[in-house]
Amino acid sequence: MKQSFKVSIQPDGKTVHVLDGTSIYEALGEAGIIIKSECGGSGVCGSCKVRVIEGKYEQHGSERHLSKEEIDKGLVLACSARVLGDMKVEIPTVSRVFEQKILTRGLTKEVSLSPGIRKLFIEAPEPSLEDVRPDLERVMDALGDGRKRKFPLELLRAFPDRLREGEWKATVILTDDEIVGIESGNTTGRHYGIAFDIGTTTVVGYLIDLTKGIEIGVASRTNPQTSYGDDVITRIHFASSTADGLEKLHGQIVSCINEITEELVSTSGIEREWIYMIIATGNTTMSHLFLGISPKYLALNPYVGVLRGGFETAASELGVRISPFGRAYTMPNIAGFVGGDTVAMILASELNKSREIKFAIDIGTNGELVMGNRDRLVACSTAAGPAFEGARITHGMRASDGAIEKVIIENGGISINTIGNKPPIGICGTALIDSIAELRKLGVIDEQGKMLRKEQLPDGTPGFIRERLINHDTYRASFVLVDGSETQTGLPILLTQKDIRETQLAKGAILAGYEILKETLGVEDKDIKEVLLAGAFGNYIRRENAKIIGLLPDIPLQKIRFIGNAAGSGAKMLLVKNELREEASRISADTEYIELAVNINFQKTFTEAMFFPLLLNNG
Amino acid sequence: MKQSFKVSIQPDGKTVHVLDGTSIYEALGEAGIIIKSECGGSGVCGSCKVRVIEGKYEQHGSERHLSKEEIDKGLVLACSARVLGDMKVEIPTVSRVFEQKILTRGLTKEVSLSPGIRKLFIEAPEPSLEDVRPDLERVMDALGDGRKRKFPLELLRAFPDRLREGEWKATVILTDDEIVGIESGNTTGRHYGIAFDIGTTTVVGYLIDLTKGIEIGVASRTNPQTSYGDDVITRIHFASSTADGLEKLHGQIVSCINEITEELVSTSGIEREWIYMIIATGNTTMSHLFLGISPKYLALNPYVGVLRGGFETAASELGVRISPFGRAYTMPNIAGFVGGDTVAMILASELNKSREIKFAIDIGTNGELVMGNRDRLVACSTAAGPAFEGARITHGMRASDGAIEKVIIENGGISINTIGNKPPIGICGTALIDSIAELRKLGVIDEQGKMLRKEQLPDGTPGFIRERLINHDTYRASFVLVDGSETQTGLPILLTQKDIRETQLAKGAILAGYEILKETLGVEDKDIKEVLLAGAFGNYIRRENAKIIGLLPDIPLQKIRFIGNAAGSGAKMLLVKNELREEASRISADTEYIELAVNINFQKTFTEAMFFPLLLNNG
Repeated sequence: MKQSFKVSIQPDGKTVHVLDGTSIYEALGEAGIIIKSECGGSGVCGSCKVRVIEGKYEQHGSERHLSKEEIDKGLVLACSARVLGDMKVEIPTVSRVFEQKILTRGLTKEVSLSPGIRKLFIEAPEPSLEDVRPDLERVMDALGDGRKRKFPLELLRAFPDRLREGEWKATVILTDDEIVGIESGNTTGRHYGIAFDIGTTTVVGYLIDLTKGIEIGVASRTNPQTSYGDDVITRIHFASSTADGLEKLHGQIVSCINEITEELVSTSGIEREWIYMIIATGNTTMSHLFLGISPKYLALNPYVGVLRGGFETAASELGVRISPFGRAYTMPNIAGFVGGDTVAMILASELNKSREIKFAIDIGTNGELVMGNRDRLVACSTAAGPAFEGARITHGMRASDGAIEKVIIENGGISINTIGNKPPIGICGTALIDSIAELRKLGVIDEQGKMLRKEQLPDGTPGFIRERLINHDTYRASFVLVDGSETQTGLPILLTQKDIRETQLAKGAILAGYEILKETLGVEDKDIKEVLLAGAFGNYIRRENAKIIGLLPDIPLQKIRFIGNAAGSGAKMLLVKNELREEASRISADTEYIELAVNINFQKTFTEAMFFPLLLNNG
Repeated sequence: MKQSFKVSIQPDGKTVHVLDGTSIYEALGEAGIIIKSECGGSGVCGSCKVRVIEGKYEQHGSERHLSKEEIDKGLVLACSARVLGDMKVEIPTVSRVFEQKILTRGLTKEVSLSPGIRKLFIEAPEPSLEDVRPDLERVMDALGDGRKRKFPLELLRAFPDRLREGEWKATVILTDDEIVGIESGNTTGRHYGIAFDIGTTTVVGYLIDLTKGIEIGVASRTNPQTSYGDDVITRIHFASSTADGLEKLHGQIVSCINEITEELVSTSGIEREWIYMIIATGNTTMSHLFLGISPKYLALNPYVGVLRGGFETAASELGVRISPFGRAYTMPNIAGFVGGDTVAMILASELNKSREIKFAIDIGTNGELVMGNRDRLVACSTAAGPAFEGARITHGMRASDGAIEKVIIENGGISINTIGNKPPIGICGTALIDSIAELRKLGVIDEQGKMLRKEQLPDGTPGFIRERLINHDTYRASFVLVDGSETQTGLPILLTQKDIRETQLAKGAILAGYEILKETLGVEDKDIKEVLLAGAFGNYIRRENAKIIGLLPDIPLQKIRFIGNAAGSGAKMLLVKNELREEASRISADTEYIELAVNINFQKTFTEAMFFPLLLNNG
């Protein structure tokens, strides 16, 4: 097996373990950090510069992109430098994707801050017999912009004490058309927000300092709703058919958000009350459940939701514990199965501004696909299922410690890499793709997805492959990825025929969606300028292998780009720049939704898409 | 003693008992029904026509205002017809004040209905695979006016079921900029509102059918906050100095409003859920307490409140139990001690539109005074105290069953009238004024307000007066109004020296306010075109007597008009015509408030105003 090295990443403070020879670019991807790479990691564009602080690496063909000064400073191209030992690496802000666009981390300030909730310090004149304006008017006048604003009853109740405690110096918390809160004295320096990406499986929160526009923390949790079902359909059913099902699922996601908030608050040393805004993005079902709105009819033909537009409300009304004046904005969705996370992805990737046709895909429990350009965008959702998140796979597991996340078969052996460099427990989605791709290349799996028996193997199949092919009592044809002697459980980790079928269903659904979108737009593979891979899973997959199993279309590798957690990035953008809500609304309204369930070509396309591609000169 | 007769009033279904010779106009006033009287009841204008269905009466000098046809129908001028026996009388809509202006009772429809909350029946198309608009959009589009409206979270939660229960026929409940509710099917016929006049002492609710603009019920309660103090200052103190004082007072007024609502609902046979809007008007302290906002600083120099403008919120947020979608609008006030009830009075009396200078006064626990015309209005509040409501008076009581409400001394005897024609228990404000005026006329009370001893009485004082003058152990100089043998308690009912002092303080405060307002506007008595008496108390007082004790200025009687519960009328107007909120806001903003406490002339004026006027040819 290959050796594995530790890569520490600055200033993020993250550490990943990667196999010998992994590119720094891939190592960063495993840490969830996406950097610029216009050429798709082929060493052409020179935009993925990072600095190696210490550690051994080898680099090929990147000299022309680096000045002597840069080389002296230790800068390398992340895509072309391969890790050969433990390493410390630093990422300059300019090399980051999205983050550098929206967050002013230290140097760049490309986006002016205009959060949806503002804090204004005022000094109101003290009342006197010559000036008996009531408290509220006194504050309104001190704001000085002459706007008519609404205000909640609770605020009026707080007014008299807050104003006098601070001796008529106060901080007013307001939105465009409403005063939502007041605090004594000048508290404008305490202003934070959290962008939440509510996935069916994972919920991630990004804590942003809204006075500076910088991200100061990230935390995530498994969506606790998973205890009521892996996928949205199961949860919709639970919410609709159980007496307090909706309340339970709503309560769970709110608890999860509160837990993430607590973690962000305690690790960053701020107070919960300093958080005034959260932006929530997620698929349409998640958005409905987060708002406590029944998603029942999303699962029934013709699959309509309750609302499509963005929705802002008091955070307290949802049970979200931040500032008592805090607001919660849930992003608009596109249709019943294409949600706010897709709107956020379009927003972050600027698909809606592109002149060229692009294809963006976020592979989660559902696969959301968007294709088009500034003139027309079409989207669909494929029930990919949770296979790529490790569910329904014999020894599948989520991408957490001990999960095999990479499999390489070469030089007469199998190399695996596990998350956290721990003894293996099971395989996660990326390794599922890797292992099927590797076995497909060796001819162990045929085009139909059938795993050959030993006696059917092509001539020249290496011995170490032959001996790992077994006929398991329960799982029938299986391939031993890791022997029981090497695993945490003492049991072997297998890739089974069933796993391949699950994978075929998942990737077939996605590829079929891609074909239907092309057909809708009337374009062909060659017209697709870029394929953008979003989401946690998208970050980690090996694009070559994804192409070999036909999860990704037959598009040149350099056209396939990782864009990180684009849903999270879009939500962060809204957090710091409120005007983008309008753009989000336009995206929501203008993106055409294609309902695959009623597309007459879908079944045929799906059936074809389940096959594995012929083995040509892939990779 | 004079005989007393029963007067039944149609279509109101009210009954009052009045002394022999009382005008029908006064009898109606006692029932709380104010009819038109442009000349102030002097038989000149001919606008107070009513129909005597049966009963004995005498009429003087009204013939020229009545056609032969009208006389045949039994029409009389209410001001000129005196009750001489039990009577049934009917009031034509055209003779009513305010009611006929704002409420389309049967015949007239002078005001088009435009309540602040509307109900619209829609038929939304059912979703299909060709039309997958979400529920909310479906409804918004069905509304068809293209307005962007906000909506509360609760509504979204109710949407899916309500729409499907009614098979996509639903009634949308909306304000100008918000959808607040939805009901299955067509419920537009069930649309009610209540206008509440929240007095310091009495709370009155008027139930209005908002589909027709007619009043269908009235109910009132003593403000339960009185258990914490008679006047606003005591209550402000209680709210500010007790741990849960504010919550208690807020809870009490809300309970009171809920009780009145229950009564209105049960007597009119409608459901509580059919009430969608309440309008609340009251003095600034009452408005603050109703909203649960601390009135603390209203009682501290420089006496500023928390808000002045009108405020609408969900009724449920205040604990007011009407439709779950119901709204509560609290009227704007003018200053710390001139509240929404004064705004409502100005609105109802159209003082703000008058070319001539008028003076309007609402005597309650506080006396609110407004003077001016469409060019300029000035207002002040006088701490008249609750004397006219029977408080702080030795045998004082509220105007309820058994209260002496009228005292006439003539023909060698004292005639009294009690409310409900019951044996007397005590005296209410009108009788207090009557008895002081009568004794003043007889010279028993001097200009300084001193009650003479027997030996000081002028020559010719009748014997029955002399014998009623006693020196009471506790109350010193006192006048026996009713002997113990005739009262419910068996104890005599006295008018004491202390009562006269309390009355002097109360009437002095009001008259001083009047003088300061005149001074502010630079006008004299002769410039005042009309004096408008509002409020329950104003309805009942004998104007002659009010002038004799100097409660009202020296203005010709025909210039003094009762205008009924103008605060209630103003609130009713807002209920049926939402656009008037803007007018109310303008009145609130434009009316100048005069703070008597800091007026350098006030003390001097007040001291002078406490004296009783010299006995000239009054009345």
